[in-house]
Amino acid sequence: MAPRVLGFIKGFFVYETAKSVVVKSWSVGIINRIVQLLIILYFICWVFMHEKAHQLRDTGIESAVMTKVKGLGNFNDRVMDVADYVIPSQGASSFSIITNMVVTANQTQGYCPEIEKKFSCTSDGDCEKKIGLNIGNGMITGKCLNDNGTSNDTWRCEIQGWCPAEDDTISGKPMHEVENFTIFIKNSIRFPLFGVARGNFPSSLNRSYIQSCNYDPVRHPFCPIFKVGDILKHLNQSLENITKIGGEIGININWKCNLDYDEENCNPKYFFTRLDAAFEHSSVSKGYNFRFAKYYQSEDGTEYRTLHKAYAIRFEIIVSGNAGKFNVVPFLINLVAAFTSVGLATVFCDIILLNFHKGADEYKAKKFEEVSGVVPESGSNILYKGSQVSIKALEKNSNDSGTFSIGRQE
Amino acid sequence: MAPRVLGFIKGFFVYETAKSVVVKSWSVGIINRIVQLLIILYFICWVFMHEKAHQLRDTGIESAVMTKVKGLGNFNDRVMDVADYVIPSQGASSFSIITNMVVTANQTQGYCPEIEKKFSCTSDGDCEKKIGLNIGNGMITGKCLNDNGTSNDTWRCEIQGWCPAEDDTISGKPMHEVENFTIFIKNSIRFPLFGVARGNFPSSLNRSYIQSCNYDPVRHPFCPIFKVGDILKHLNQSLENITKIGGEIGININWKCNLDYDEENCNPKYFFTRLDAAFEHSSVSKGYNFRFAKYYQSEDGTEYRTLHKAYAIRFEIIVSGNAGKFNVVPFLINLVAAFTSVGLATVFCDIILLNFHKGADEYKAKKFEEVSGVVPESGSNILYKGSQVSIKALEKNSNDSGTFSIGRQE
Amino acid sequence: MAPRVLGFIKGFFVYETAKSVVVKSWSVGIINRIVQLLIILYFICWVFMHEKAHQLRDTGIESAVMTKVKGLGNFNDRVMDVADYVIPSQGASSFSIITNMVVTANQTQGYCPEIEKKFSCTSDGDCEKKIGLNIGNGMITGKCLNDNGTSNDTWRCEIQGWCPAEDDTISGKPMHEVENFTIFIKNSIRFPLFGVARGNFPSSLNRSYIQSCNYDPVRHPFCPIFKVGDILKHLNQSLENITKIGGEIGININWKCNLDYDEENCNPKYFFTRLDAAFEHSSVSKGYNFRFAKYYQSEDGTEYRTLHKAYAIRFEIIVSGNAGKFNVVPFLINLVAAFTSVGLATVFCDIILLNFHKGADEYKAKKFEEVSGVVPESGSNILYKGSQVSIKALEKNSNDSGTFSIGRQE
Repeated sequence: MAPRVLGFIKGFFVYETAKSVVVKSWSVGIINRIVQLLIILYFICWVFMHEKAHQLRDTGIESAVMTKVKGLGNFNDRVMDVADYVIPSQGASSFSIITNMVVTANQTQGYCPEIEKKFSCTSDGDCEKKIGLNIGNGMITGKCLNDNGTSNDTWRCEIQGWCPAEDDTISGKPMHEVENFTIFIKNSIRFPLFGVARGNFPSSLNRSYIQSCNYDPVRHPFCPIFKVGDILKHLNQSLENITKIGGEIGININWKCNLDYDEENCNPKYFFTRLDAAFEHSSVSKGYNFRFAKYYQSEDGTEYRTLHKAYAIRFEIIVSGNAGKFNVVPFLINLVAAFTSVGLATVFCDIILLNFHKGADEYKAKKFEEVSGVVPESGSNILYKGSQVSIKALEKNSNDSGTFSIGRQE
Repeated sequence: MAPRVLGFIKGFFVYETAKSVVVKSWSVGIINRIVQLLIILYFICWVFMHEKAHQLRDTGIESAVMTKVKGLGNFNDRVMDVADYVIPSQGASSFSIITNMVVTANQTQGYCPEIEKKFSCTSDGDCEKKIGLNIGNGMITGKCLNDNGTSNDTWRCEIQGWCPAEDDTISGKPMHEVENFTIFIKNSIRFPLFGVARGNFPSSLNRSYIQSCNYDPVRHPFCPIFKVGDILKHLNQSLENITKIGGEIGININWKCNLDYDEENCNPKYFFTRLDAAFEHSSVSKGYNFRFAKYYQSEDGTEYRTLHKAYAIRFEIIVSGNAGKFNVVPFLINLVAAFTSVGLATVFCDIILLNFHKGADEYKAKKFEEVSGVVPESGSNILYKGSQVSIKALEKNSNDSGTFSIGRQE
Repeated sequence: MAPRVLGFIKGFFVYETAKSVVVKSWSVGIINRIVQLLIILYFICWVFMHEKAHQLRDTGIESAVMTKVKGLGNFNDRVMDVADYVIPSQGASSFSIITNMVVTANQTQGYCPEIEKKFSCTSDGDCEKKIGLNIGNGMITGKCLNDNGTSNDTWRCEIQGWCPAEDDTISGKPMHEVENFTIFIKNSIRFPLFGVARGNFPSSLNRSYIQSCNYDPVRHPFCPIFKVGDILKHLNQSLENITKIGGEIGININWKCNLDYDEENCNPKYFFTRLDAAFEHSSVSKGYNFRFAKYYQSEDGTEYRTLHKAYAIRFEIIVSGNAGKFNVVPFLINLVAAFTSVGLATVFCDIILLNFHKGADEYKAKKFEEVSGVVPESGSNILYKGSQVSIKALEKNSNDSGTFSIGRQE
């Protein structure tokens, strides 16, 4: 048994490497090195320098946004402050600044005629057809009313619900002062993989600078105060239009951090987008509006409300980004990939050498060594003869040499 | 020095390629080509056609959602409109439609007995034990009160807080009309990598179609109006149950875009899920409810409020997706990977050839050329000699051997 | 034609494999096997066991969060319940608990003097300069008023807006009871790729346990009830400070699921972070506060409001995670990568064998077979004569041929 085990061990620790053909040709040699150089350049410039393949990447950015709007506006002879025009009030990453409103005051539950022309009627029959439709300010009762006058034009179907019904064709003068409003954005992010936390402005910024600056991509890139007018200008939006019918604006905060350098260089970039850009040419659903009500109760316990149809500019703060830091594992993997890829030059050069180069046949003869099947096939006779000699010569020792071939085929 | 430099340059531009053994055997040749074919098919069908590995992929989809609910309901003999039952009102991607409420009107700060049976008491001592517990409608004072009658059953601990205390066992008739409510969803997305912005309905849809259609996966796949009843039906939810205790529903909007085709083909798919599916069999926290209050002030300045325990259907619009577009870099990388992988057929065929094929020993002798250590090791003496001979013998016929070299360069 | 087609087919089904050199050397053989072993260990331990490269991974986790706060507090001699201190009320993943407030009651639209010292004035001229500034409680009219007394110190610029103006230096006693408040978190997640839905607590938890437990990472890891005091303690936050000026706290729910095991083992981990950690040392914008108003209407129709500047603890529930499950495709790809990488041991061993091993020249002669260009190049004359000769010739001068061997081993 012992000799067999020894033989096995000997066979196991045999080293196997590819046999190579070395071609001393200037032309192919130079082509080979140029192709290799190109591959190396690709890896250095693109894979490592541009794609940062030697870094571990954290794409699971965690973000918290706090916003604060400042400014005073005028609407319907009332001074509007933050508590009046910002909804919701908590300073989250998504908020709306109301710029225009249709206010329907003192609504109570009851019966009244509709307002819109599509509810005009001449008899109860017209209205009975509309019972159950979900398109009015209240439930259609089936009666045809004329509360307001005697002309035919003012007959409308009666509804049950909050009365009087809203007439959203009456609109005030939009609050143009929104142009001068400022939005303060406090954005804290964290890359959990690296345990790095950053804020969108440096701690070194002092109070007086922050109270006086306005963000500007060139002059004040770290100022966290954004003037609404500047954002609109940047997006080529008309103040007139957006304050009248509302709109949606995205403030993108993009973090791309290379943590191989100092953390202090990890700062965000700001981009502005019109979120409803895709619907620019759509005939429906222009702008942005929503309805809300303020509820009151009179001394006798009757509930009444003021309905607001609010046209607003909605801001969404969208935070994205990733961070990379040198790490041995991705570095090694890509280094190995680079070295392996350099070998691909051979594929390209072989094609040239064996087909288009003068002396191609000679190279073929050197590169390929033939062995035909054991049973002679017709036509390969001569070929076979030659290899027969070599095979015979080899056969003496072939028994040992191939024993561990399976283990070696990786 | 010059000759040494020349020698170095000469050596540098030498080309080196692997020496190959060509086996003229039908069986192994066919197996080899079949395995190669399978690998090629895998790459074409799976890697390129299914996985779209030749495309650059943008997974950082940016999305903005605007919603608008329409419909009129009845609750406690009151007509409820959007401003009454949608919370929050701004039409964000997450909103609740209130379907049932426990209303506790005219609460003021003061002292009153608790309602629930777990606060029943026979003496002040029973209540003193409960001081500091966080489980009632107010702070337990330690007194045992009987406001409502004389039977033992109505003695309850006294609380300080908003009085009278809420009795949430009294519930109204749920607002079944929610079934006919419609949700209009306006979803704009952007793939920042490709600068492509899309909306969830084409701009060509006209106003009258959108005002009359209801989403249907087959007949109206582009209609952005979703009927609540249809969604419930699709999820096999009972209207009766969900309107009574509330629930959470997800509307998934999935964008998968192949930007190699026209952008117009980049359209979303909608899926509906019950978000609280995981808690279906849980005994606690069924449904969905929350409390809010409307605050009033009487003429003498006293603040009072109406507390609402609202059971609601919460909708969450969840947008996901990615886009791909042809790009040279991933295409080349995967093409190279494909070609390299075709070479793996050799590993498989070598195993067959060197172990299970007749004439395996002969192939081994051809494939492996042996060289032993410089210091002769016992037993490898003859072997070394042999390989020397074999090389000489082989050289004679090397000219013919390379005929099919191009096809073989994988 | 037929013979040519036959010839082509014959050529096509020829099998080609690399010719190898087998080196019977203990030292290199052992090094080779050790390097191969290291590579295999790397793949088993890191790639498969740690990185789970054999699994298909779903990173598009879908999540829905429902929260419910419980607890009673005292602020300004009023008992505060959930409807009073939680904003917004719907129990979303982001909510604020108000802990301190500056309340300005009974504001109406009108004219009144400012409060802050920076608006102090001695003449109307001082105030005219400030017209148009966006920094006060209302629009500066340009007048200098003294409503409150006769001392110089009380002269202030007049504003138009909600009057009286807010004096945010007056602050109540923060609501320290927040320490005992509890947050119930119901988090349902779904991995759409695998169709697996999970909740953050098992369905088997019974009502009484959930009503009495408090989350503890060791003793109650499945309890979904979080005590605010525990969270603050875990983050080393002072209750005194955070209730006074507010703050932002993140509750991270992290799901990492190996779906090769039973789904029941797929449970979340909770982490707590201070979201504004990055601004800890910043001199501006400490804490967290926002303004909101409650609107009232008197019998004569005048609107008035109570303005609240609320200092709050904002909680953000951040859900992240991924799931993996065995899949044939990534398994095969990585298995092939593993086998291919084992071959890299050759690169390393070739460098040793051809440069640092005794008998390196002999190995070089065996491994490299030379063929020079067809047109005789100076110095390669003898080499060219016959490849038979060249090999012999090479063996003599193999000193040069291997000189650049390191560079060639890619």
